Amino acid sequence: MSSSDIFIGETIGTAILILLGGGVCAAVTLKASKARNAGWLAIAFGWGFAVMTAVYTSAPLSGAHLNPAVTLAIAIKDGDWKNVPVYWGGQVLGAMIGAALVWVTYYGQFHAHLTDREIVGGPGAQDTKVAKAAEAREAAAGPVLGVFSTGPEIRNVAQNLATEIIGTVVLVLAVLTQGLNDKGNGLGILGALITALVVVSIGLSLGGPTGYAINPARDLGPRIVHALLPLPNKGGSDWGYAWIPVVGPLVGGAIAAGIYNVAFA
Amino acid sequence: MSSSDIFIGETIGTAILILLGGGVCAAVTLKASKARNAGWLAIAFGWGFAVMTAVYTSAPLSGAHLNPAVTLAIAIKDGDWKNVPVYWGGQVLGAMIGAALVWVTYYGQFHAHLTDREIVGGPGAQDTKVAKAAEAREAAAGPVLGVFSTGPEIRNVAQNLATEIIGTVVLVLAVLTQGLNDKGNGLGILGALITALVVVSIGLSLGGPTGYAINPARDLGPRIVHALLPLPNKGGSDWGYAWIPVVGPLVGGAIAAGIYNVAFA
Amino acid sequence: MSSSDIFIGETIGTAILILLGGGVCAAVTLKASKARNAGWLAIAFGWGFAVMTAVYTSAPLSGAHLNPAVTLAIAIKDGDWKNVPVYWGGQVLGAMIGAALVWVTYYGQFHAHLTDREIVGGPGAQDTKVAKAAEAREAAAGPVLGVFSTGPEIRNVAQNLATEIIGTVVLVLAVLTQGLNDKGNGLGILGALITALVVVSIGLSLGGPTGYAINPARDLGPRIVHALLPLPNKGGSDWGYAWIPVVGPLVGGAIAAGIYNVAFA
Amino acid sequence: MSSSDIFIGETIGTAILILLGGGVCAAVTLKASKARNAGWLAIAFGWGFAVMTAVYTSAPLSGAHLNPAVTLAIAIKDGDWKNVPVYWGGQVLGAMIGAALVWVTYYGQFHAHLTDREIVGGPGAQDTKVAKAAEAREAAAGPVLGVFSTGPEIRNVAQNLATEIIGTVVLVLAVLTQGLNDKGNGLGILGALITALVVVSIGLSLGGPTGYAINPARDLGPRIVHALLPLPNKGGSDWGYAWIPVVGPLVGGAIAAGIYNVAFA
Repeated sequence: MSSSDIFIGETIGTAILILLGGGVCAAVTLKASKARNAGWLAIAFGWGFAVMTAVYTSAPLSGAHLNPAVTLAIAIKDGDWKNVPVYWGGQVLGAMIGAALVWVTYYGQFHAHLTDREIVGGPGAQDTKVAKAAEAREAAAGPVLGVFSTGPEIRNVAQNLATEIIGTVVLVLAVLTQGLNDKGNGLGILGALITALVVVSIGLSLGGPTGYAINPARDLGPRIVHALLPLPNKGGSDWGYAWIPVVGPLVGGAIAAGIYNVAFA
Repeated sequence: MSSSDIFIGETIGTAILILLGGGVCAAVTLKASKARNAGWLAIAFGWGFAVMTAVYTSAPLSGAHLNPAVTLAIAIKDGDWKNVPVYWGGQVLGAMIGAALVWVTYYGQFHAHLTDREIVGGPGAQDTKVAKAAEAREAAAGPVLGVFSTGPEIRNVAQNLATEIIGTVVLVLAVLTQGLNDKGNGLGILGALITALVVVSIGLSLGGPTGYAINPARDLGPRIVHALLPLPNKGGSDWGYAWIPVVGPLVGGAIAAGIYNVAFA
Repeated sequence: MSSSDIFIGETIGTAILILLGGGVCAAVTLKASKARNAGWLAIAFGWGFAVMTAVYTSAPLSGAHLNPAVTLAIAIKDGDWKNVPVYWGGQVLGAMIGAALVWVTYYGQFHAHLTDREIVGGPGAQDTKVAKAAEAREAAAGPVLGVFSTGPEIRNVAQNLATEIIGTVVLVLAVLTQGLNDKGNGLGILGALITALVVVSIGLSLGGPTGYAINPARDLGPRIVHALLPLPNKGGSDWGYAWIPVVGPLVGGAIAAGIYNVAFA
Repeated sequence: MSSSDIFIGETIGTAILILLGGGVCAAVTLKASKARNAGWLAIAFGWGFAVMTAVYTSAPLSGAHLNPAVTLAIAIKDGDWKNVPVYWGGQVLGAMIGAALVWVTYYGQFHAHLTDREIVGGPGAQDTKVAKAAEAREAAAGPVLGVFSTGPEIRNVAQNLATEIIGTVVLVLAVLTQGLNDKGNGLGILGALITALVVVSIGLSLGGPTGYAINPARDLGPRIVHALLPLPNKGGSDWGYAWIPVVGPLVGGAIAAGIYNVAFA
């Protein structure tokens, strides 16, 4: 694969990933969306099938990493760092394009939501103590930041980091071991479906505390776009939290590569 | 494939697509349906598996385009326009047959729903401003038009068109790149499952603003049937909006073919 | 395949089909079930994956028809009627065994539900006219008959029959055309997954009016078991409706075989 | 496969299984989780995809039994008991590691949930008699034991044992017959997806009464961890019930092996 194919593939693929992944967050969150309040299962399946669609439309060009933590883990596993900057660049650029496309797709919904604002608590809002934390988070980060980037229900650096690391270890280990399962028997590209369902699984099972970034580009790119977009009443971009969904997944990817090299290689 | 096989295949396939796709809208919407209020996830999976079922039962005859935007994109990609009218004719006819079969299947439910009418707001109805828009839409288009055709939550030509274009680009790009993923390793016809899940993804992620036609025949055929059927109190067929889910998907298909020819071919 | 393999395979397979399919109805319906009120999506996926599981555990013995309408259609298509009685016998026996196993699995739940009875209306119960029909149905057929057999929301012989016929045509056409899609490229037994998702599709889209029997054995076998079981306050078995989910699917299977022979053979 | 590969594979695989399976229970149950109240469908898909992910990441090392009942059934089928203790040891150790990782991932959520306790009834809590049983169970077993281990809605040794046996027979029979469906046509490792969906099916259909352990390690390992963890107000570990989800699945596995040897071998 040439550098330009890699860059184009990762840009297209990650743009589609974030268009569809951010899209389901917008669909379920924003006022005047037909899918409003469709629930966590819709979020989890939405992100999973976003991965699948993105992989299929970028794999022929770049092999479809779409995640800096996956690129890091493969570089560690193979000892080949040459294309890492090209992958990472395409991934962050693609994520920004995808986030901008979510804004275009849900333009009227963003406007209706933000100009007729209401304070909506998180899932634990019925509980006073937790509701206060949710309100504080709303105030700090704005009610539509969640369409773009992740944020914790309970702010705790150690736990938030651990949750992101653990989720990414599961994702990357599943990606790395997939090659071992494929003995020329047709798994091949169907691996994209498997990976999609692994992402559904992580969303359902490990997404509760932080919203499962498990991908630095997925979180950082859209957060930059949130900071740049001319949205009324959008609130802050919560930059204080922004390093956790970058560092956590990269650490998780490295740990997964280490487990792979020790136990599976 | 002969012209008659193409026509029969597209007619059967699109009839099954709309029978099942319109069917899930009827199932979730109409009074006296066991699936009433099953939610957006049911809609999204219902349309996705409708695509899958329709592809499997028409692919051996026509290759299962089932969507004028797909036919257009393949014609652009291959530079072969010979069978386009046959495909399009079968697709629109099939969509009309499918919509009529939805009416047969849910005959009593339509009657119970329309003769004991109530104004039901959209998902944003708890909000006064949005609810007024929803009421206006009910009044303009009738409460069962949504079983047949799509309509926007917020009426905005530019955004509605953009949303349909973006959704169709994702769909058609996924369809076109599928061939690149299939290296004789068994993807083959399983591509129908992948395409189905891409449609689920688009429904979950990009369906919130307009209800994701992403297929001119899917919207136009059933709208014609809505206009013709002897349903009491059915309201108008919203012809003012009808061009958007025709033009948007065709533009989207053409853009996807362009991206394919530049980046992947 | 020997006659005894066919009989054993169909008995085991249909028993598992009804154990899992009736099971999800019990899970969602009965008091003191963890899955109570899990909704129509759970019903539709539950029946679909029931088909998948049943096919995998019976296909090596009997080819996994598990449905008299499928057996009929294959006999028409192939012009070979020799094993039809063996298939049908195994299917009805298996369905009865499966229904009995549902009763064992949910023994305490049935007791809690029936001895502390409440009248629960259908999805349309908030509407007075429809609620009265629902109450009448409860009174006529007993509140747990739905765990065993299907019943219409609106009782209308012509529509109910049409709905069952249409649903079965979709199912059987998908089963018959599957062979055409398999060109030695690995679809093979994965067809069971495709068939399962076709059944999910039919459930989501066409199940609203009658509960989608689309299989005479699936309805008749469990209805006999409902009539025989020593359940307190179980109500009648609604024998007046029982012929529709037998005749409708058989007619649908024959029509699908006809379409296949004309358009695909 | 060497003994050490088996032990490492089963430990890693079962750890991932319980991390994701226990994780979805935590996600849906605990306060301050974004997925709270996502419902039974989320639980069923969560456990199913947990199995899929765990199989893919352990199959290359150990063949991915991940369940003492599966190991027992394969030993009976093959008449080879040599590695049974290695499999069982890895499975129980892995389950304990997985349960500990759930605690790390949801650390803050456990604290918020348990220190601001409320009595939440089961699905039947609206009904007085059943609600009392639910309260009694809360009091006996503590409100977070369900994140770790299973428990019955209605405590009845005979029914609870029968339910676990029946569910495990379905699971193990599906696992054993999968080999017969694979005729070199590419099913191979895709069997993991099939098995995952069988587990979804069992969860949807047979999980209502006891929460479907269908795996001794899945229940016993996390119960030990529940007993050991320093959780405030955690309540008892319900050791009186603990033997049922161990003995039931083992009996079910043996029965499935017997059915296989008689009908399929």
